Amino acid sequence: MKLILAIVQDTDAPGLTKALLERGFQSTKLASTGGFLREGNTTLLIGVEDERLEEALEVIREKCRTRTRLVTPGVPLAEAPDPFLAQPVEVQVGGAVVFVLPVERFFKV
Amino acid sequence: MKLILAIVQDTDAPGLTKALLERGFQSTKLASTGGFLREGNTTLLIGVEDERLEEALEVIREKCRTRTRLVTPGVPLAEAPDPFLAQPVEVQVGGAVVFVLPVERFFKV
Amino acid sequence: MKLILAIVQDTDAPGLTKALLERGFQSTKLASTGGFLREGNTTLLIGVEDERLEEALEVIREKCRTRTRLVTPGVPLAEAPDPFLAQPVEVQVGGAVVFVLPVERFFKV
Ligand code: NI
Ligand code: NI
Ligand code: NI
Repeated sequence: MKLILAIVQDTDAPGLTKALLERGFQSTKLASTGGFLREGNTTLLIGVEDERLEEALEVIREKCRTRTRLVTPGVPLAEAPDPFLAQPVEVQVGGAVVFVLPVERFFKV
Repeated sequence: MKLILAIVQDTDAPGLTKALLERGFQSTKLASTGGFLREGNTTLLIGVEDERLEEALEVIREKCRTRTRLVTPGVPLAEAPDPFLAQPVEVQVGGAVVFVLPVERFFKV
Repeated sequence: MKLILAIVQDTDAPGLTKALLERGFQSTKLASTGGFLREGNTTLLIGVEDERLEEALEVIREKCRTRTRLVTPGVPLAEAPDPFLAQPVEVQVGGAVVFVLPVERFFKV
């Protein structure tokens, strides 16, 4: 048994949780902030059998991959004489920090 | 030293914390949601000496045991022509998911 | 790789996070309450390379050391006939409970 501790962006958490559950991996969500990722992240605890560890990590890599998104800055036109400021800009989203911890014992009550 | 990470129902958390403290086990509560248990759960961190691990786990098993509770559905009588709907129903409460993690070092400042 | 799980007072968390970051240690903050310390504490997760573990622990010891602070009880003078009650009193602040956990694998997405 391993305990995966995955710190992911808030925006990726619901999709990741759903994808994990579809494969039978249950997760518990802890509220967290700052540090490893930008503000607004979620720490997920996921207990997995050793033989399914790679599969669970693969889901995390897939659902939290770093990608870019086009964002149009919310600058009022009147205040943005430079038209460049109103152009959409690419921002990076996603990413995850993942720790795999050994588990000595695991049980359900 | 071991670190017990116990995910329990919110409703069981105060009783468990109290029972642990009566035996000298301190716990720290993290807010958590979803996943291993129904919505509304709490993750407790409990550091224990190896020789008292079984005792702490026993308290968790006792205080979080799965049991049923009779709940009367809150259905207005006028809207429940079928009297069966107004009967109390058994719901399952309790339960816990428990990970025991090895600790390499532990200290207090 | 090690995962440091440090339960510290809320009041010490920002200074600790800042001091860690100045040395390149990123941390993730989990909301927590009660137990190991008085109400109002924060659990920090800090992933560190083995060879920098001592350095990170030293920052925690420095920033969370137990110390006393003079507090003047907020007792209205009219209700405090005993002048002793209006004297500043020493309260203890700081302190931390620190677990160092082994990490089997660590990666960033
Ligand atoms: Ni195992
Ligand atoms: Ni030990
Ligand atoms: Ni290592």
